[in-house]
Amino acid sequence: MSEVQLPSRSEDFNDWYNTLVLRADLADYGPARGTMIVKPYGWALWENIQQALDRRFKATGHVNAGFPMFIPKSFIDREASHVDGFSPELAVVTIGGGKQLEEPLVVRPTSETIIGHTYAKWIKSYRDLPVLINLWNSVVRWEMRTKLFLRTLEFWWQEGHTAHATYEEAQAETQQMLDVYVDFARNEAAVPAFVGRKSDSERFPGADLTYSMEAMMGDKKALQAATSHNLGQNFARAFDIQYLDHNNEMQYCWTTSWGLSTRFIGAMIMTHGDDRGLILPPRMAPHQVVIVPIHKDDTEKAAVMEAVERIRGLLEASVRVKVDDREWLTPGFKFNDWELRGVPLRMEIGPRDVAKGSVALARRDVPGREGKSFVPQDGLDVAVADMLATIQVALLDRATAFRDENTHEPRDYAHFKDIVNDGFAFAGWCGGADCEIAIKADTKATNRCIPLEQPDEGGSCIYCGQTARERVYFARAY
Amino acid sequence: MSEVQLPSRSEDFNDWYNTLVLRADLADYGPARGTMIVKPYGWALWENIQQALDRRFKATGHVNAGFPMFIPKSFIDREASHVDGFSPELAVVTIGGGKQLEEPLVVRPTSETIIGHTYAKWIKSYRDLPVLINLWNSVVRWEMRTKLFLRTLEFWWQEGHTAHATYEEAQAETQQMLDVYVDFARNEAAVPAFVGRKSDSERFPGADLTYSMEAMMGDKKALQAATSHNLGQNFARAFDIQYLDHNNEMQYCWTTSWGLSTRFIGAMIMTHGDDRGLILPPRMAPHQVVIVPIHKDDTEKAAVMEAVERIRGLLEASVRVKVDDREWLTPGFKFNDWELRGVPLRMEIGPRDVAKGSVALARRDVPGREGKSFVPQDGLDVAVADMLATIQVALLDRATAFRDENTHEPRDYAHFKDIVNDGFAFAGWCGGADCEIAIKADTKATNRCIPLEQPDEGGSCIYCGQTARERVYFARAY
Repeated sequence: MSEVQLPSRSEDFNDWYNTLVLRADLADYGPARGTMIVKPYGWALWENIQQALDRRFKATGHVNAGFPMFIPKSFIDREASHVDGFSPELAVVTIGGGKQLEEPLVVRPTSETIIGHTYAKWIKSYRDLPVLINLWNSVVRWEMRTKLFLRTLEFWWQEGHTAHATYEEAQAETQQMLDVYVDFARNEAAVPAFVGRKSDSERFPGADLTYSMEAMMGDKKALQAATSHNLGQNFARAFDIQYLDHNNEMQYCWTTSWGLSTRFIGAMIMTHGDDRGLILPPRMAPHQVVIVPIHKDDTEKAAVMEAVERIRGLLEASVRVKVDDREWLTPGFKFNDWELRGVPLRMEIGPRDVAKGSVALARRDVPGREGKSFVPQDGLDVAVADMLATIQVALLDRATAFRDENTHEPRDYAHFKDIVNDGFAFAGWCGGADCEIAIKADTKATNRCIPLEQPDEGGSCIYCGQTARERVYFARAY
Repeated sequence: MSEVQLPSRSEDFNDWYNTLVLRADLADYGPARGTMIVKPYGWALWENIQQALDRRFKATGHVNAGFPMFIPKSFIDREASHVDGFSPELAVVTIGGGKQLEEPLVVRPTSETIIGHTYAKWIKSYRDLPVLINLWNSVVRWEMRTKLFLRTLEFWWQEGHTAHATYEEAQAETQQMLDVYVDFARNEAAVPAFVGRKSDSERFPGADLTYSMEAMMGDKKALQAATSHNLGQNFARAFDIQYLDHNNEMQYCWTTSWGLSTRFIGAMIMTHGDDRGLILPPRMAPHQVVIVPIHKDDTEKAAVMEAVERIRGLLEASVRVKVDDREWLTPGFKFNDWELRGVPLRMEIGPRDVAKGSVALARRDVPGREGKSFVPQDGLDVAVADMLATIQVALLDRATAFRDENTHEPRDYAHFKDIVNDGFAFAGWCGGADCEIAIKADTKATNRCIPLEQPDEGGSCIYCGQTARERVYFARAY
């Protein structure tokens, strides 16, 4: 409900975000500290994300499976970087069925270890490869500072886990899944992102190489929206995932993992939203069109509702349409409510529209009179579909322009500090962790990713001035 | 793989089941005691179950949401029967982020308590009702004797949780969801079931009334395949779920819950399988048709594969089709393998079929020559769809006949003991828990359910001989 105005997005982005997530009925706080309840409207968004990704996963040969949430604690210790990365964040089950357990179980923070144990059992020959499995589940990481969707103790995600005969295949898979995420983000969620490799300090614990997709939020901070890891033979060696090759010799597999989580809902909110609330990209919106009937008395109501039902029937086949027939609320209240909830297109139908055989349409992404049009009821399904497609493109264009307008190449370190104060810097970097650490201490900006395609001229490191190994995106990040 | 024969279903049903689940690649044991890995083939079955149910849930006005797996331990204690029922089965997290927790968290065994806590926050007025939410997740119950799909420490399921203004609405919902399960089981999984009310001793801990769907497995034991509970005001009072009614007075809500789990996969296996393996109902089968190409040399291969690809293209739009092109296996091996995995229809295409413009089709449910036919490639999509529909009906008919042939009305208690030794008994019951306990001690058979429609004449209690309150199904059960 939107009785009270949202905090201003430009004045207090953080307050705006937290208030909006609750007010738009996307999520709520769970009773255990740091946990999240995803409410039906937020879950419907997640289902649309799931379907759009799952379709892409299956089209690239992947299958889904279900793995246990409980992992013997000793598994976590087997891969050296993995244990360092995840041990501090574990939730541990010590009591089961009223008894102290001999070996505690951790609730999965991610499944590389149990996958490694299992693939070692399943994979025997090169004929069993590749194994291309994805899991839809939730994982637990004991975060201290939580924020709905962005960082919660438990979150929902998918985690892909693949095993291959060669390094080349694993590397191709790692890149393919990054491409899948980029394609999804861009074409379904209208979220344009920079992509690249993570530096050593930002890599996944246990990976040889991590790719990430980094999106710019409305406050010009970066959000890591998905990652894809080439795990090399690290987990294969830790868990003994071996196969018999064509020459009857035992070889270690090469494995990958990749994931995208409910955090992505946060990315959509912070990419597109405005002072009046959410703006959902049409392809992801639970309701693409909301119809608000307008009538004063029973006679008007009968005529209006007849038209509303007819139009709902016409649209339903091709569009996710919702009729708001709550009689105890005014049309004005409903307009605000659906704006807050980010429905891309609002359709108003009153007695005059019925008489004229038209409807009024209001685009969520274009405020005021400019976003409003009157469209004949004849052929309305086509007009609505066209308008939704237009909105989808407009959102991507706007987000891309915003990202590019706020990404700069610094002249020098003073300029760099200005830039990362309010945007992304694309800057030379010597490759040294020391410079990353110093920059972070100084500016709170981190090395977000190293683009795969580099300009010919690297220039010099923005911090130490030595020859840059490559150019990278620096930004403050969620 | 099916190099070795399955144990005989009639000789050792238990061994047959356990071996088949592993051999057909449906599931595997997880590393932590009692946990289960659902392999891709088994998960594809679960996805088909999910889709068939989710469609029905949404058509009846329900929406999905995501709730945390962690529940403060104190929540479980609030509803008196609930704590008695679930306390012995809890998995408890006592350590988080390296520290002992002040209040331990339980991993949900079911979500009535956290739902109760949350609905109390969300529901304020009669206008907020009904709340019709479903969750797809996994839950943990510390079972000591586990069996893949039937009883595992963690299992996947859906749990519906609804809140209503009146008893009548809650009761209508409880019955509606039972009907949804029955419709799903019958028309999608070809699993006919008896339905009815549970007796007091078998009721869900915290429910006023539990309905269940009881299916007969191939060994004539009963399996509870789904339940639907009218929770009365028990959880509403324990968690203070109240709403302001039309007269501005506070009232407690009436709530329901209902669930179906991965256990249902066990029900499908044990309803339809035979000595050669699974028989999957076409509407649920991950692969409805498997094409096995047959060729001796490269010339034959070229011609056969051209036809195979053409036919795959023809079928793909309407049928889930799989081509088994593994060149290192013989056709005979593949036939056995896909029989083991229960694919409803096998299509063989060899050089003679290519020459004749036909294919050979073998029905999984009709063994030998009788189940085989030769069908022209012209119009094959229609012929295949018809045959799949025929198989679907045949499986339901066979299972229904089997159930009815093995369900008897006992003349007296001696006869009753004979019947439940190898089937279901439909017998009079006085309504006393003492008789249920004595019957169970004596025969291992339990009161499965009390049909909603009762014969006019109740007769006398099969155990104590007093006037029967109603007639019920007794059987040994999983």
